[in-house]
Amino acid sequence: MAQQVAPVTLATMQQPVRSEIGAVFEELARIVRSDFGLIGDVNAHLLRVKGKLFRPTLLLLSAQAADTLSETKVTLAATLELIHIATLVHDDSVDHSVLRRGQPTVNAMFSHQIAVIMGDYLYSRAITELVRLGDLEALRVISRVTNEMTVGEMRELEAYDRLNYSEDAYDALIHAKTASLLSGACEVGALEAESTVREALRRFGLHLGMAFQITDDVLDYTENESVTGKPGGLDLKEHKITLPLIAALGAMTPAERAVVERLMAEPTPGDELITEVMGLVEARGGVQRARERAAEFARRAELELADLPESPARDALASCLAYAIQRRS
Amino acid sequence: MAQQVAPVTLATMQQPVRSEIGAVFEELARIVRSDFGLIGDVNAHLLRVKGKLFRPTLLLLSAQAADTLSETKVTLAATLELIHIATLVHDDSVDHSVLRRGQPTVNAMFSHQIAVIMGDYLYSRAITELVRLGDLEALRVISRVTNEMTVGEMRELEAYDRLNYSEDAYDALIHAKTASLLSGACEVGALEAESTVREALRRFGLHLGMAFQITDDVLDYTENESVTGKPGGLDLKEHKITLPLIAALGAMTPAERAVVERLMAEPTPGDELITEVMGLVEARGGVQRARERAAEFARRAELELADLPESPARDALASCLAYAIQRRS
Repeated sequence: MAQQVAPVTLATMQQPVRSEIGAVFEELARIVRSDFGLIGDVNAHLLRVKGKLFRPTLLLLSAQAADTLSETKVTLAATLELIHIATLVHDDSVDHSVLRRGQPTVNAMFSHQIAVIMGDYLYSRAITELVRLGDLEALRVISRVTNEMTVGEMRELEAYDRLNYSEDAYDALIHAKTASLLSGACEVGALEAESTVREALRRFGLHLGMAFQITDDVLDYTENESVTGKPGGLDLKEHKITLPLIAALGAMTPAERAVVERLMAEPTPGDELITEVMGLVEARGGVQRARERAAEFARRAELELADLPESPARDALASCLAYAIQRRS
Repeated sequence: MAQQVAPVTLATMQQPVRSEIGAVFEELARIVRSDFGLIGDVNAHLLRVKGKLFRPTLLLLSAQAADTLSETKVTLAATLELIHIATLVHDDSVDHSVLRRGQPTVNAMFSHQIAVIMGDYLYSRAITELVRLGDLEALRVISRVTNEMTVGEMRELEAYDRLNYSEDAYDALIHAKTASLLSGACEVGALEAESTVREALRRFGLHLGMAFQITDDVLDYTENESVTGKPGGLDLKEHKITLPLIAALGAMTPAERAVVERLMAEPTPGDELITEVMGLVEARGGVQRARERAAEFARRAELELADLPESPARDALASCLAYAIQRRS
């Protein structure tokens, strides 16, 4: 797809559904409202840390592009964001992360126990809300992608310390972990549309999701803390194998590969070693190859949009796609 | 209710639904089947540790007592057990428990990360299975009690180090944490029955669940490791406030209360101090008072059964109730 010069802003992406996005915040607050103090405290913290609402944005834009936007979609968008938040709360907890979007994580601010149980609370609360809506088809899509996400996270636990980790295994991992929910967001938005439109948007979300996650993994090799809010090279530090490394390994000399092996053998590799391997991954074309794959997924996503009628919502979906691969954090 | 002399066995309770209980095991294995190795390994471990299937037993007996037993109930019973297992996996993980039913916990045998994510996997898999059945009413009950359980666990995190923890707060805690799922099991079993029968079984499960959890909390004061598989006095050691202590505190002298306060001030109280407080709780009637409350809940549960037509399943539900308050482990 054509590279845009000006960076895509959140406001551009959300423009056609601005009022609905505001309503998503209200729905989120309504759904998690609790008369029990501790739950209220954690929720207040989570709601303070407003995310970009990227998944609700995709859902609402898809709905508008497919002419299936309704009040229910706002609630569906809120439950999807809630499931996303629940996942982040558990992820941060098992990774012992202390910061998320510049704010303390639930495990850091409260406790590890509270993070695990609050994740369960948020997820089960999202499900009760979906059941209340009574839309079995939406439930089917959302419960399926939620289960897929857990499979993706289990796959991710395997993607450590394994220099023979394949690109296919990586694809299966990011498909399940990231692309499934973004795809589900687009599909649920267009659930009542004719099946060609619904399927086109489902595939759009899937390809966008693949491009989104590859871009995320590239950023770890190309950006530093001042840009992304987390230190560069973190995946390498944690021995996590992602596409740039997988793609570079095949082109490395035995001596270069030995450097990577040395890093994997160090329980906590030092900055110098990390920087050296980052340099090798760049030099051996790993970053370039990963960027090309992200661009290829983006092209496939863009093709899906071409089948939809022209509309501001469709243009905004294209902006979301541009954002997914151009973002620097 | 009349105290039975011979202890109730699992075989007695499950007699009328023996073949369905066998089918629940097969359904459990089917539902969690996965083509991804690590998930398969954890599932194989979890399925090896066969529990008593107390919740499926209640569901199936309720269905038989209400004349609503069908193949679908077997699947519903399996999803309920799966949700119960998911809860145990997370509980063990946040409590850092290493043994459950005499077998290593998932966090001990695999890792803490795997335990958190596998719990999410099992729970979301149960939901996708419920959605596949397409029974919105069953989904409504089960998703509600699942969310209630997480609220109960959040409440439990508050029930530490607080000598002013009230009996009302304790009731709300065990209602949400334990009784809700047992009540849901009975209600889902009888979902298609006329509302008086369905409601009677729902309340039966609720009162049974209250009696069940109080009995559990009493056992911690009265039994030792050779009987229950976990050391007695564990709740006190962990500073967890349960009914026997709450009930005894009101009758203690200031000097006795000071002993309890001393225990709560010790990060890891020694056995001698724990034994002393256990003695005080017994001497000041805390154990007796808790047993009376369990018996009172059991009486209320038994009254609900009286409204159902006579049947072997109804008798077996009465055995479940007797088991709930007579068990020693």
